[in-house]
Amino acid sequence: MNGLGEMLRRRNGGEPALLLDESRARANIARMADRAAGASCRLRPHFKTHQSAEVGGWFAAAGVDRICVSSLPMAAYFADAGWRDITVALPFNPLGVESAAALAGRIDLGLLAAGVDSAEAVAAVGARAPVRAWIKVDTGYGRAGIGWDDPGAVAGTAAALDGAPGVRFSGLLTHAGHSYGQSGPDRVRGVWSETIARLREAGAAVEKALGAPCPLSAGDTPGCSLAADLSGPDELRPGNFVFYDLMQERLGACSAADIAVAAACPVIGLRPGRREALLHGGAVHLSKEFLPEAGGGRCFGRAARWTGDGWSGPLPAAVTSLSQEHGVLKVEDDDLWAELKVGSALPILPVHSCLTADLHPRYLAADGRTIGKRRSNDSAGPPREQP
Amino acid sequence: MNGLGEMLRRRNGGEPALLLDESRARANIARMADRAAGASCRLRPHFKTHQSAEVGGWFAAAGVDRICVSSLPMAAYFADAGWRDITVALPFNPLGVESAAALAGRIDLGLLAAGVDSAEAVAAVGARAPVRAWIKVDTGYGRAGIGWDDPGAVAGTAAALDGAPGVRFSGLLTHAGHSYGQSGPDRVRGVWSETIARLREAGAAVEKALGAPCPLSAGDTPGCSLAADLSGPDELRPGNFVFYDLMQERLGACSAADIAVAAACPVIGLRPGRREALLHGGAVHLSKEFLPEAGGGRCFGRAARWTGDGWSGPLPAAVTSLSQEHGVLKVEDDDLWAELKVGSALPILPVHSCLTADLHPRYLAADGRTIGKRRSNDSAGPPREQP
Repeated sequence: MNGLGEMLRRRNGGEPALLLDESRARANIARMADRAAGASCRLRPHFKTHQSAEVGGWFAAAGVDRICVSSLPMAAYFADAGWRDITVALPFNPLGVESAAALAGRIDLGLLAAGVDSAEAVAAVGARAPVRAWIKVDTGYGRAGIGWDDPGAVAGTAAALDGAPGVRFSGLLTHAGHSYGQSGPDRVRGVWSETIARLREAGAAVEKALGAPCPLSAGDTPGCSLAADLSGPDELRPGNFVFYDLMQERLGACSAADIAVAAACPVIGLRPGRREALLHGGAVHLSKEFLPEAGGGRCFGRAARWTGDGWSGPLPAAVTSLSQEHGVLKVEDDDLWAELKVGSALPILPVHSCLTADLHPRYLAADGRTIGKRRSNDSAGPPREQP
Repeated sequence: MNGLGEMLRRRNGGEPALLLDESRARANIARMADRAAGASCRLRPHFKTHQSAEVGGWFAAAGVDRICVSSLPMAAYFADAGWRDITVALPFNPLGVESAAALAGRIDLGLLAAGVDSAEAVAAVGARAPVRAWIKVDTGYGRAGIGWDDPGAVAGTAAALDGAPGVRFSGLLTHAGHSYGQSGPDRVRGVWSETIARLREAGAAVEKALGAPCPLSAGDTPGCSLAADLSGPDELRPGNFVFYDLMQERLGACSAADIAVAAACPVIGLRPGRREALLHGGAVHLSKEFLPEAGGGRCFGRAARWTGDGWSGPLPAAVTSLSQEHGVLKVEDDDLWAELKVGSALPILPVHSCLTADLHPRYLAADGRTIGKRRSNDSAGPPREQP
């Protein structure tokens, strides 16, 4: 049993747990806050990555006073934690009118209209409690929102929202999620520039129609990490950067030393002939997100070295297959192989930290302290019957 | 808003939820129990798929009195629910000696030795409380266990376990997980036959060494669903069959009408030009498991039609991309497209029901009743400091 195994034994019944390196996360927050301040943008970080009131406090300590989330129950969780300005950055779901109105009565709530239907639903919330409305604009990702190249539709929706009782039109919002699929930093920067130019073009049409300034909100983690100049939008909404991960490292958006979470996985078997370790660490601990490898293989995570108060690495040892509770770690590093024992545990760096974090009900700090969090399908409370 | 949307609004704040069709699940249980009885095998179903005390009760009603699970906290959950004979079907993790001994003191607990190291750890449990020990044998999957083609190692480990104080040697156990990757029913049947033949060969070596019968345990869902003759092993351990899913349907292990869970996802946007619906239903509701499609595409789920008390289908409408909270549904069906509205909800059949179910804290029955469950990283309780 190594030190990490001993910590799992003492703190988690020997089961896998998600490690969180607070100093790395705080450094990631500070760096992004500096970048936003340097560009005179407000930072409205996306809290879906960590889903933790305590981690949220690290942002507040860095001067952040507004956030975004991806569901109403997540908004309610952070409202309970004291946040007073929250945007739900998903096209508004008309089934949530009652829940949204209840929340809008106690915080400054922003909702997204992605077309005529969701605009009507946002107006239905406004009729019950004052709410802010953003228009989701598709600037090239192709997933959601009104096309930037249809300025008439954007401006018409803005005018409709602006005239709806109880609704305050807040501006245009985009998410350039295709930045994640680029081949490297220069391509990410290209996506950023194009995104901001398109968002400005749509914003100009709205300003002309309303005769008032139209705030702009943008900001995926790759773009916000890599763009040489972040100025342009009024607010930035990256989320993943608080933890980063192997996907961001491959993209060049962070260094391996910035990755702030790792799944601590017990070694439960060794196959010397294949240099493979069997981990108690599967899809329910890491997620099935993978990075493609040369030769057609898949990487579901990489092992790091436990240092007693954190980890270093990654090492040349990748999780090459993953079932529900098991992972197979292919070890290319002689020193690591010599150290591995059944009953020890290894930090496994995740491919996509947002999904890995969502699988865990709490974080474990390097000193053994637990840090509370929620998971995506947690309700704000037990389901309540609605009339 | 359609009937399913209305149910989500009333019962889950309008958020996505996991639907469970009780009659389909009970029929799946009855069918497998009949197949096991017909082959004179005991059924020891794997409960990692549903992780629900209430669904467990449906198995008990079908005559099941022994189960397997994939972690000690999952075993503790089902022990609390009244199950008295539980095998933890993962190579035993030496970090769990204390937790296992505590559990072995109150139920008939089976643990897996997959080599010398885990055998020693199982013996350490036996020294504290009586425990049963199975040897995990690798019959061709290549993931875990002692190779079937090394009968000396299998028999030696059996003898060591059999002589350990407090340990009762129970037999050999295998999991032919490579059945999932076969191209169709005949190939699955071939894997089944080979698996049983190899397990018997290893069992014969153990019987010779110990001079006593060596029980055999096998049984993945594809093999147990498709093999013409299940006789051979003493017990069968399929799990996924309670819900089945699109992966099993593609393999031929079930029909679409057997799939007993579906994620109810609100429609939050429509793109008529592309015939795409945007769903509030992402990787945190379905998992990133996918089926490869012709042409290089991926299928993360398929839409079904809500019938008021369940669903029919699937329809020609597949989830072709998935981010954390969003899914894109490509609709090839004219009738479905004409019906789709923002604010309605659709049942999405999962690719891999075990992973989809694990993401949800409860099931929603077609009548709106909730059915409790646990998730993989739930501890048996809050973490307790161990000395």
